[in-house]
Amino acid sequence: MARYVARVKVRFAEIDRAGIVYYPRFFHYAHVAFEEFFEDRVGVPYHVVIDEGRVGFPTVRAECDYLSPLAFGDRIDVAVSILRIGRSSATFRFRLRNRTKRRAAADARITVVCVDMDTFRPKRIPPRFRRVFERHLEPAK
Amino acid sequence: MARYVARVKVRFAEIDRAGIVYYPRFFHYAHVAFEEFFEDRVGVPYHVVIDEGRVGFPTVRAECDYLSPLAFGDRIDVAVSILRIGRSSATFRFRLRNRTKRRAAADARITVVCVDMDTFRPKRIPPRFRRVFERHLEPAK
Amino acid sequence: MARYVARVKVRFAEIDRAGIVYYPRFFHYAHVAFEEFFEDRVGVPYHVVIDEGRVGFPTVRAECDYLSPLAFGDRIDVAVSILRIGRSSATFRFRLRNRTKRRAAADARITVVCVDMDTFRPKRIPPRFRRVFERHLEPAK
Amino acid sequence: MARYVARVKVRFAEIDRAGIVYYPRFFHYAHVAFEEFFEDRVGVPYHVVIDEGRVGFPTVRAECDYLSPLAFGDRIDVAVSILRIGRSSATFRFRLRNRTKRRAAADARITVVCVDMDTFRPKRIPPRFRRVFERHLEPAK
Repeated sequence: MARYVARVKVRFAEIDRAGIVYYPRFFHYAHVAFEEFFEDRVGVPYHVVIDEGRVGFPTVRAECDYLSPLAFGDRIDVAVSILRIGRSSATFRFRLRNRTKRRAAADARITVVCVDMDTFRPKRIPPRFRRVFERHLEPAK
Repeated sequence: MARYVARVKVRFAEIDRAGIVYYPRFFHYAHVAFEEFFEDRVGVPYHVVIDEGRVGFPTVRAECDYLSPLAFGDRIDVAVSILRIGRSSATFRFRLRNRTKRRAAADARITVVCVDMDTFRPKRIPPRFRRVFERHLEPAK
Repeated sequence: MARYVARVKVRFAEIDRAGIVYYPRFFHYAHVAFEEFFEDRVGVPYHVVIDEGRVGFPTVRAECDYLSPLAFGDRIDVAVSILRIGRSSATFRFRLRNRTKRRAAADARITVVCVDMDTFRPKRIPPRFRRVFERHLEPAK
Repeated sequence: MARYVARVKVRFAEIDRAGIVYYPRFFHYAHVAFEEFFEDRVGVPYHVVIDEGRVGFPTVRAECDYLSPLAFGDRIDVAVSILRIGRSSATFRFRLRNRTKRRAAADARITVVCVDMDTFRPKRIPPRFRRVFERHLEPAK
């Protein structure tokens, strides 16, 4: 199984009134990793997927276990893998590791559906993407 | 069971490159409803809870089923209820209904832990909050 | 001169690492007031202006004087007026007043250009909008 | 005069309903560059400045000329320089250049005041920071 890890850095603006990263922001970090995954592994920047391929991957289900809080300045590794690939949907997994504090920060699973951007209707995942997704599929336990 | 509904309106900035509300933003709407719930039902604005009560409710688990996309200008009802109340944790439910399009938009469950804001360690949910949470507890099915 | 005032409330997420509202967020409050101004005064929600009118108002210049910091929970009045109306551009003024703390919070001026949404080229401000803008024009000093 | 350039990449979430980067977001890019400038040039990450130095730099004035719109996927160089250094305030300049489209994107000037984080009152810019600021001062024209 191929592994892909994106890196993000916690910004001043991303801290909430409680002094830690606002919890919806973790999903943003996951999406940033998703964008990087497309560019690096599929070889097509996500904006080209949308604009030229007319394909998008809206989220139909998101879940996240928060394991430790993130602080301003923390550097995060976001490991991207795939848990399930269906005809038109796939479940991505994003494990956030806080490199600065040397501990796990979160474990998120996001189910996306491949849609035609002009109709927003589900369509079969294009083979070019499917092949890359399959290489990052976690082995069944 | 008491019901509480907060209202939000989708803003120009909240739309992503695919032309719909960015999926982590749904959790922000849930948090806005959580803030309003404290002010309206607990009778203590959430900033006073944090600043004077020195109590916070960080999220330890979040999940959301996305039922229909939201567009700029849509008006959303966010119904707040509670699924479970423990010693120091509680699971809130936020059902987002798109009033403009007259359809369900999302169903989110957020588990928060009551912590001492000075130590970030879990503490028993204060009775004043617990009583209000219990009034909004969904009946077991 | 007609006056328009939109209301916003500072949210938990909008606070930065320094414990006050992140300064770019003031421009977001100005934009929220701009959206409300269209709906209330022009009588056309801004999303309809864009989607059906195929007209948009991108910003070409923004400036803001920050007069006092904003805290979580503060309620803000955003007074909207217009300083200058040209053929295709207009300069809006947004004065933010902190109702909670009873003091001025900021004074922002935003110059927007009316564009055709399909070409992004400037076009004459439609008369329907111009008439409303003129009613909110600040008198010359 | 020393030059510092930070790099940012436009994200999926940062696009607004008009399909371009939301204009307040340009100020966020400027702040990200400001954070990187501290880490790279002052040699102290900005979170350490705040947490250990108990010094912050809230914005008292911001202005930006928008020269061309930014799209999802664009890579931006943010050149940081300083236009003026006072006793407790300084005016930073951030020139955003769109590397993808090979054109200038924006020119922003941000005046910050050095404050004691415990009292939020202005204080003299610490010599360690002043020396670095001076090295990045633009020559008078």
